[in-house]
Amino acid sequence: MSETKNKTQTKSKGNTKKPQNKNTKPAVAYKPVVTANTKGKPRTSKKRRTPAKPPVRVAFLGGLNEVGKNLTVFECENDIVIIDCGMAFPDGDMLGVDLVIPDYTYLELNRDKIRGVVITHGHEDHIGGIPYLLAKINVPIYGTPLTIGLIENKLREHSLSAPPTLIKKQAGDRFSLGCFDIELIHVNHSIPDAVAIAMTTPAGVLIHTGDFKVDYTPIEGRMTDLNRFAALGDKGVLALFAESTNAERPGYTPTEQTVTDSFDKLFSAAYNKRIIIATFASNISRIQLIINCAVKYGRKVAFSGRSMINYMKVAQELGYVEVPDNLIIDIDQLRDYPPEKIVLATTGSQGEPMSALSRMAYSDHRKVSVGVGDFIIISANPIPGNERAVGNVVDELLKRGCEVVYESMYEVHVSGHARQEELKLIHSLVKPRYFVPIHGEQKMLQKHRSLAMSLGMRSEDIYIGDIGKCVDISTEGFKEAEPVPAGKIFVDGLGVGDVGSIVLRDRKHLGQDGLIIIVASLDVYDGHVIGGPDIVSRGFVYVRESGDLMDDIRSLSLDILEDCSRRNIHEWGVIKNLIKDDIAKLIVRQTGRSPMILPILMEV
Amino acid sequence: MSETKNKTQTKSKGNTKKPQNKNTKPAVAYKPVVTANTKGKPRTSKKRRTPAKPPVRVAFLGGLNEVGKNLTVFECENDIVIIDCGMAFPDGDMLGVDLVIPDYTYLELNRDKIRGVVITHGHEDHIGGIPYLLAKINVPIYGTPLTIGLIENKLREHSLSAPPTLIKKQAGDRFSLGCFDIELIHVNHSIPDAVAIAMTTPAGVLIHTGDFKVDYTPIEGRMTDLNRFAALGDKGVLALFAESTNAERPGYTPTEQTVTDSFDKLFSAAYNKRIIIATFASNISRIQLIINCAVKYGRKVAFSGRSMINYMKVAQELGYVEVPDNLIIDIDQLRDYPPEKIVLATTGSQGEPMSALSRMAYSDHRKVSVGVGDFIIISANPIPGNERAVGNVVDELLKRGCEVVYESMYEVHVSGHARQEELKLIHSLVKPRYFVPIHGEQKMLQKHRSLAMSLGMRSEDIYIGDIGKCVDISTEGFKEAEPVPAGKIFVDGLGVGDVGSIVLRDRKHLGQDGLIIIVASLDVYDGHVIGGPDIVSRGFVYVRESGDLMDDIRSLSLDILEDCSRRNIHEWGVIKNLIKDDIAKLIVRQTGRSPMILPILMEV
Repeated sequence: MSETKNKTQTKSKGNTKKPQNKNTKPAVAYKPVVTANTKGKPRTSKKRRTPAKPPVRVAFLGGLNEVGKNLTVFECENDIVIIDCGMAFPDGDMLGVDLVIPDYTYLELNRDKIRGVVITHGHEDHIGGIPYLLAKINVPIYGTPLTIGLIENKLREHSLSAPPTLIKKQAGDRFSLGCFDIELIHVNHSIPDAVAIAMTTPAGVLIHTGDFKVDYTPIEGRMTDLNRFAALGDKGVLALFAESTNAERPGYTPTEQTVTDSFDKLFSAAYNKRIIIATFASNISRIQLIINCAVKYGRKVAFSGRSMINYMKVAQELGYVEVPDNLIIDIDQLRDYPPEKIVLATTGSQGEPMSALSRMAYSDHRKVSVGVGDFIIISANPIPGNERAVGNVVDELLKRGCEVVYESMYEVHVSGHARQEELKLIHSLVKPRYFVPIHGEQKMLQKHRSLAMSLGMRSEDIYIGDIGKCVDISTEGFKEAEPVPAGKIFVDGLGVGDVGSIVLRDRKHLGQDGLIIIVASLDVYDGHVIGGPDIVSRGFVYVRESGDLMDDIRSLSLDILEDCSRRNIHEWGVIKNLIKDDIAKLIVRQTGRSPMILPILMEV
Repeated sequence: MSETKNKTQTKSKGNTKKPQNKNTKPAVAYKPVVTANTKGKPRTSKKRRTPAKPPVRVAFLGGLNEVGKNLTVFECENDIVIIDCGMAFPDGDMLGVDLVIPDYTYLELNRDKIRGVVITHGHEDHIGGIPYLLAKINVPIYGTPLTIGLIENKLREHSLSAPPTLIKKQAGDRFSLGCFDIELIHVNHSIPDAVAIAMTTPAGVLIHTGDFKVDYTPIEGRMTDLNRFAALGDKGVLALFAESTNAERPGYTPTEQTVTDSFDKLFSAAYNKRIIIATFASNISRIQLIINCAVKYGRKVAFSGRSMINYMKVAQELGYVEVPDNLIIDIDQLRDYPPEKIVLATTGSQGEPMSALSRMAYSDHRKVSVGVGDFIIISANPIPGNERAVGNVVDELLKRGCEVVYESMYEVHVSGHARQEELKLIHSLVKPRYFVPIHGEQKMLQKHRSLAMSLGMRSEDIYIGDIGKCVDISTEGFKEAEPVPAGKIFVDGLGVGDVGSIVLRDRKHLGQDGLIIIVASLDVYDGHVIGGPDIVSRGFVYVRESGDLMDDIRSLSLDILEDCSRRNIHEWGVIKNLIKDDIAKLIVRQTGRSPMILPILMEV
């Protein structure tokens, strides 16, 4: 137990009533306490006012009003602890962008206060930003062994100026980061070794759930440490930060064993066919399940897709997946076995165009060709936005004669996120004084707020944040502070942040309507045309079939240039605008389109 | 009754057994007839071989392995009848494309045989191609009054060289098109006046369901004419062409009355708030329902969105919607009424960026601004591919403080398409000898096949087609014919078919990676550089922050040009390729990106 922790507890003991919790008896359900009667009364009316405690300042750099790039900053006294450091995948309108990370300006400005980054689990939306943060600030990273293993693996692809400080902690461990006493609490999720984080601070205890669900019968490891949540709740929790991904969905997320049962039936049904299962590369429990089924049904397992091979490597090295000897074969050995002796686990469950499964579907995979005799299971739900791509892959596989089992047909996937009843369980165990829904779009955050209110919480004790918002939390409640710099930074190739709204606007214009370039050489003295104008177009029309239009553009451009020369107009900005306007009118009249028009003038 | 019809019936009477149907007793359910025992036996073994009848040739130009641009061609003896003439919306990879229509080459080649186009209903995926077909071939178009009204309205926006021949027929009407005797059969769908089509041909009776569902209690009009399907089934149907949109979904599509009940509750709940309901502009029953609720709750109705106003105009003129006097107000009058006296019906239920609802959500609507005090109902399901866009609009509305009811929360929408039990009903009433699932992606078509087989149909009596496929159907079964020209024709602005794969590939490249233009003037005699090279970039990087890179590109280009001049390389193709290759390498090394590189050389 750390010094900080002791200090806090001592403070608590000094009060006759626990200031973090309005319940007089901690074991009482938390609904009855806040009733319509208490509503509106000043919070301190019934009890002695407690001595002022420092607030915890919370800044949100990602994970609110979006799914992905989770990063929350907790600041108390002179210490900052960061929870998670994720990336997001680009939206459809972020053309050419590879990935999106939060704006780290606020962290750079406060680099001296940062005591560490604590990671809840090894998914990209929680670890994907680490290389970019470390390139700016070399801060220590804390996580469970698998999480740290996956981060190490990721950092190998990036060259950092200083070696990173990666510190392994086990679920259940406690350690100090400045005035924060950190405790990792085991939770179930769709990747092993996930944790929630309890932070005991001078302001009180904060709990951040990370991503979690409650699976009483998980494939690997133990269930979410409900007892620890309960114990913390009994002692009094100032604020709960809980994920909201499935806050719109009623009921419970089924146990991973549901998938075991489905796989068992499907492996029987596949009979003498080759089985191909697409799932998330990081879903190591699902892969364990595939391995278990393969053993039971006497099949060998091969892997396809770089990220799946990577995850498997780390998980195997660290002992997070149990693999009997001689079970796994290389993809090149597939031809040495009859179809009924093979399971191929592959990436591509989201219909990603370059993934292994998509390549198989479109006959573009170098090593695997699929058709009649293949039994394909897509063991994942489409992430919103990917429905069409997944549907197209399924259609292509069906056209080739494959049998395809996809999510809407069988229980071949369960989510890794808590649904409403599980969220209610955590809220009810933790009994927080204040609540901040995190990780989700607005509709999920608002649903999560409604859920907390249905348990008796008051609207003013719940705070829905946004990226860049900053709020002080204390026993006095929420107090919004000045916003902090925040936003989306685009990573495109090696460039971080050099693609912004103007570049994206141009990409969109070019992508939608293509381009007409009008290039001419002008005499340096009188501006008369001595070369060109030449017309070059891309992404606009089939030029070969549009000769007349190109001729019209050329002759109109020449007219404008000569007219300018005659009228002694030599400001190139003016000339270019005249060309742009008149050519745009000509093109829209003839084609109804608006390509980007780029006049380029050269002085010779 | 037409001459053709009589001829067919006479033929039937001449046979002791009805050739179109293997049932000896027409009323018997059709499952027991085709059992495992008969499987594999030659079809004619048990009965006298009937005299050969001409086949019907069916060519599929759209609507298979896709959702949209439905167009099926039926050909018998020397006559062609076309059913539906739709368009499709572009996929995400069809950049800048406004809409997609089928390739009409096959119809142009056979224009002399075409007796008419029969339209099942007025949705864009059934009528949207008509202006483009009529621009090539002036064929008569047949449809019910509302359908023809919507087509007339659409054709006003297109200038056709010859006036179109639009012929109104009522559900129940019969008319001849060559040797085809056409009968329109009333069906329920999400637009009024929808019909299925029965075609009595020399080959036998074919039924094309169009889009349909079975609603015993529709908002307007009567239920699907099940009796007529049954009567045709009793007489014997050679082949059924049935839509497959909801073939994956078990059970029944609920009646539109479900939405009535939900709206009733929501109008109560909205209380003193302004109600805004987004739905499909064409869903005239839904708009009738909104009008009914508005009357009941004492609210005025305004409309927003051009397509909704258009549909309403046609539906009102033709009497397909009942509107009390003084109920509808102009959108400019909204401010004259308190919020609790208003319902605003709007487009944008699919999150389309330019739609009225999206503009409201992003504060970009000229006449309506939304916020606290607005109760917004999204009365539609997201079409696959639109989930993300709809989610974003919901989030923006919630952020503004609107209350938003969206599909996953309440029964505020029902589909217009038959689910599995309704499909089984039609199959069982019609008892077709052969079956062709239409209107759907591969997975839907295959599910529909499984459904037919679950009712006892043999796999070989079911044909899954594809665009461009052509099949002869006769009492002998299916016989594939030579494929016909078919494909996707892109409409972009005024251009039809002038955007193809090369233009789209360029658009994609430009949109993803942007563009670098290297322009130089060369001396016409020795090729030395007399102007430039100048570097212009768009959609690549912030040029102002990338001065060094631009300098590097310029100086490398100059080196290459001068080197070429020294080495007497004057072939511009060679020089351009040298520049492209070397600049590409430079850029990928420095940025990890691959913009389009366009060297432009001018002779002076």
